[in-house]
Amino acid sequence: MSDYRPPLDDIDFVLNSIADLSSISKLNGFQHADPDTVQGVLAEAGRFFSEVIAPLNRIGDTQGSQLIDGGVKTPEGFPEAYSKYVESGWAGVHLPEQWGGGGMPYVVGLPVQEMFKSSNMAFSLCPLLTQAAIDALLEHGSDEQRATYLEKLVTGEWTGTMCLTEPHAGSDVGALTSKAIREDDGTYRISGQKIFITWGDQDLTDNIIHLVLARTPDAAPGTKGISLFIVPKFILDADGSPGEPNDIKIVSIEHKLGIHASPTCVVSFGDETGGAIGYLVGEEQRGMQYMFTMMNAARVGVGIEGLALGERAYQEALTYANERQQGRAVGADPGTSSLIVEHPDVRRMLLTMKAYVEAMRCLLFDTAGHIDRQHHGETPEERERSAETVALYTPMAKAWSTDLGVELTSLGIQVHGGMGYVEETGAAQHYRDARIAPIYEGTNGIQAIDLVLRKLPMRDGAAVAELLASMDQTAEELRSISGFEAGAGRLDRGVTEVGSAAQWLGAKLAAGEYNEALAGATPFLRLFGTVLGGWFMARSAIAADRLLTSGEGNSDFLKDKLATCRFYLEQLVPTVFGLEASVTAGSGVLYEVDLTTA
Amino acid sequence: MSDYRPPLDDIDFVLNSIADLSSISKLNGFQHADPDTVQGVLAEAGRFFSEVIAPLNRIGDTQGSQLIDGGVKTPEGFPEAYSKYVESGWAGVHLPEQWGGGGMPYVVGLPVQEMFKSSNMAFSLCPLLTQAAIDALLEHGSDEQRATYLEKLVTGEWTGTMCLTEPHAGSDVGALTSKAIREDDGTYRISGQKIFITWGDQDLTDNIIHLVLARTPDAAPGTKGISLFIVPKFILDADGSPGEPNDIKIVSIEHKLGIHASPTCVVSFGDETGGAIGYLVGEEQRGMQYMFTMMNAARVGVGIEGLALGERAYQEALTYANERQQGRAVGADPGTSSLIVEHPDVRRMLLTMKAYVEAMRCLLFDTAGHIDRQHHGETPEERERSAETVALYTPMAKAWSTDLGVELTSLGIQVHGGMGYVEETGAAQHYRDARIAPIYEGTNGIQAIDLVLRKLPMRDGAAVAELLASMDQTAEELRSISGFEAGAGRLDRGVTEVGSAAQWLGAKLAAGEYNEALAGATPFLRLFGTVLGGWFMARSAIAADRLLTSGEGNSDFLKDKLATCRFYLEQLVPTVFGLEASVTAGSGVLYEVDLTTA
Repeated sequence: MSDYRPPLDDIDFVLNSIADLSSISKLNGFQHADPDTVQGVLAEAGRFFSEVIAPLNRIGDTQGSQLIDGGVKTPEGFPEAYSKYVESGWAGVHLPEQWGGGGMPYVVGLPVQEMFKSSNMAFSLCPLLTQAAIDALLEHGSDEQRATYLEKLVTGEWTGTMCLTEPHAGSDVGALTSKAIREDDGTYRISGQKIFITWGDQDLTDNIIHLVLARTPDAAPGTKGISLFIVPKFILDADGSPGEPNDIKIVSIEHKLGIHASPTCVVSFGDETGGAIGYLVGEEQRGMQYMFTMMNAARVGVGIEGLALGERAYQEALTYANERQQGRAVGADPGTSSLIVEHPDVRRMLLTMKAYVEAMRCLLFDTAGHIDRQHHGETPEERERSAETVALYTPMAKAWSTDLGVELTSLGIQVHGGMGYVEETGAAQHYRDARIAPIYEGTNGIQAIDLVLRKLPMRDGAAVAELLASMDQTAEELRSISGFEAGAGRLDRGVTEVGSAAQWLGAKLAAGEYNEALAGATPFLRLFGTVLGGWFMARSAIAADRLLTSGEGNSDFLKDKLATCRFYLEQLVPTVFGLEASVTAGSGVLYEVDLTTA
Repeated sequence: MSDYRPPLDDIDFVLNSIADLSSISKLNGFQHADPDTVQGVLAEAGRFFSEVIAPLNRIGDTQGSQLIDGGVKTPEGFPEAYSKYVESGWAGVHLPEQWGGGGMPYVVGLPVQEMFKSSNMAFSLCPLLTQAAIDALLEHGSDEQRATYLEKLVTGEWTGTMCLTEPHAGSDVGALTSKAIREDDGTYRISGQKIFITWGDQDLTDNIIHLVLARTPDAAPGTKGISLFIVPKFILDADGSPGEPNDIKIVSIEHKLGIHASPTCVVSFGDETGGAIGYLVGEEQRGMQYMFTMMNAARVGVGIEGLALGERAYQEALTYANERQQGRAVGADPGTSSLIVEHPDVRRMLLTMKAYVEAMRCLLFDTAGHIDRQHHGETPEERERSAETVALYTPMAKAWSTDLGVELTSLGIQVHGGMGYVEETGAAQHYRDARIAPIYEGTNGIQAIDLVLRKLPMRDGAAVAELLASMDQTAEELRSISGFEAGAGRLDRGVTEVGSAAQWLGAKLAAGEYNEALAGATPFLRLFGTVLGGWFMARSAIAADRLLTSGEGNSDFLKDKLATCRFYLEQLVPTVFGLEASVTAGSGVLYEVDLTTA
């Protein structure tokens, strides 16, 4: 297991050449986020996460969080590290200054999250869920609720959770049955059992603010009848400090494949008294609507996990390949043994990891930049256009990236050979940790359905059509760069395949043949995501070429970037050329095979 | 976690319709292996493994094998189950009757292995390694050695290991440094440390026969100077019973990602006395050559692990999908909740698993059938032709299948949603267990190199060319079956892509540009393996159609088989259509990026 090295050069490149940080830093409220300042902030963050958080990754895995006497005990070193995290101000870096945050745009907050997750994914989930709670309160909390909770959450002094899932209500949140009864004083009594509650308890902070979905009596069935409540672990006393414990019980924690340090709790509300004390957020029966407003950022926040673990796995595989000697590479002196990095097959694995990681970083950071523009853009048109881009990119940012996270951490094991299968090496942990991301925050199947059912039809298909036209234009521009003729051709063909697949799907949707379209949703997302990644790599190549020509930047870095882009375009984009067949096959054969169990 | 159900119908179909069991049972020595007898044997084996071995899979994972006081303690229930395994005769089912085996062909032994591995992969590795030791002694042992060890190993009364790997000699076996010094009595003193020794110790049997690679003094460098030795855990006394312990120390066992019940040992020879007592197999400095003669069967035996875990993961995912209700499928009554098996995206995952499993089963069983023909064929031509087929199929049987094992067990988790990430469900164990198979017995990268460097050039390319011609013929034949026009077209195109990729690679080899060819080896193996799987599915469809038309067989099974073949041909074969770009890209870009670590 080697040390984590924050990939500051590539983060910097993507922020400036793809996500256009300088234009975001001109937006109202972000003027202090100029590229030089941001570079300094990120270097500092990189130091913090690699030095303080990354060393706890393996102990977090081996010890795990434990349930002891009804409370969660986190692994050794976690409480101290968390305190440092709060003190150093990283918790709120992209949150409003009004509530104690750093006031940076999300496009700066996301690289900070990447480095946190590369350092220690399980640990990073605690702030990730806190941020979801913050977003809910920022958007939908009352002034009083915001004054009461936000600063504590933004600084990280308290943490937050999202209590949605129940045993029979996972992907189908609308099936939940937890109850909320209104009391005369305006508070509610919340009862029911929630499962899969990430960081549902911990010993890091004085209080935990649970956000809980529940049903009021006589609420509408399904998702429409759900309300959102604040349910603190400790009820606040008059001066706002944690006082009496609320009626919340941690029933058990799951034994999971990975992210062992992250306690995944079964949480019971109201077991003792019939109801935990809760406070309604916004209005009754609008809870799911509130959830939807937070969903894009949360999904991008999970997508980054694919990138983060891919990056970490790549770094470790690269280090190992430069240390391990085995066999003799073609052209090496007879009788000598070569570093495995000299073997073409090992280089293919490494470069595959590197290229996908860089493409993911573009997609994810650019999505974050559009989230900033969606909220802070100068004109309504800019805000609306960015909101559309966020909506379109998000399912791919989540699902394409997290599927790749699994594949790249698997390659990371393979580069290590037998040592990769031994837990001490660390490669196996990334592979285990990465496997959750395609499941939570909307399974990747649900992301694909979202892409096909809700995103393809945006503006009657014009949103996708305009994106594809931009991609074509980029392919054209790319042709003029020496060595990129083949890559441009493949991007071009990829765009054509996405376009015809999208058209086929659109026709099925228009005809009301939803199952036909849904049958091809997953391969369509893979196809679109990979080609979109190709577009970002094409833009990266164009930017790198420009910098190189003008003598700006580190020429070694830029030459590597160009070759990596070329590899992606020539060899990774074509891997999806066969998928159109699956996208447009329809559902027929899927229902011909008898898949019942007798 | 649901019970394992031996897939006897599909095994039966593949044995009879693809691997041509009836012709193998006409070969000399196999006359008692007629299809009816075999069906009975396999049903009995399925009962044994599902009832006795499968229930120990999870306890094997959670307890693991432990090193206690210098010896390995296997998980609860393993010693008793192993005794039953030996008593019931399954250990030697396809081994010579002369040595206590069942005398069945390997094409019958392999399905038995499949069921063992589906039931409990970690446990199955003990007999797998024993079989490798048996093969070595059968082929290269002296009469006395065979008389001394074979019956004990064939019946499973003792187990065997293969001690090849050393810390600096993994893929590059030739770098090993363990020593063997000849004594005056003709025995040798073996010293050195071996790592990654599967089932290097256990508490199941009275003795363990280690087969150890070591160097005699003044031996040639590299692989040419290696000799093979028998090194028993306990030296046999005059009547052949285990007597004094040999100088062998189990230093440690690895903490691995999966196969926890299989102790992976660091074994030290000769620590106390300067040398463990060993007996030379065959001649000095021919050890690697002996290894190569056993390699194909061992690789097929690992390839079956991809199939076995894919099958088990499929069964469990199917069961879960038929129990779990979530969301409402298109067309279901409003207000109802549907089984997830009704959702097209879930069906796609299940059918992908099912189709790959069935294609793998064809490839693996057919390879086993050719191993039988290679040794027992009636004419030298038949034997030679089958040997060539075995040589060509083996790298794909190993690497394509084990890569798929990882992918399908990952899909198995995904079908389970959040429950798939919880260890108790069992899906995660398969995913962890499956991950070793692409690494050991020659990494999948090495299989790809073997395919390109050694197998493509067989008979100047004619071996591959003739196979492709057969595949084209099958595609032609397939066109006449209703509903298979599209599938036939895709097989046809796949064959064309394999052909042109093979031609490109062949030209590079002919020009001595090895690195150019090696750079594309891994994508070529995936391309070839997937299309080869398509050929087998096409033959399966033709056979199923014939049986259906003639009114033989179970029509429900045959209709499902036809639809599964159609899915494979129409939707899985095209997934590799983009890979030719990678195969023929050459090594240039791989060496353009600086992959040194500063």
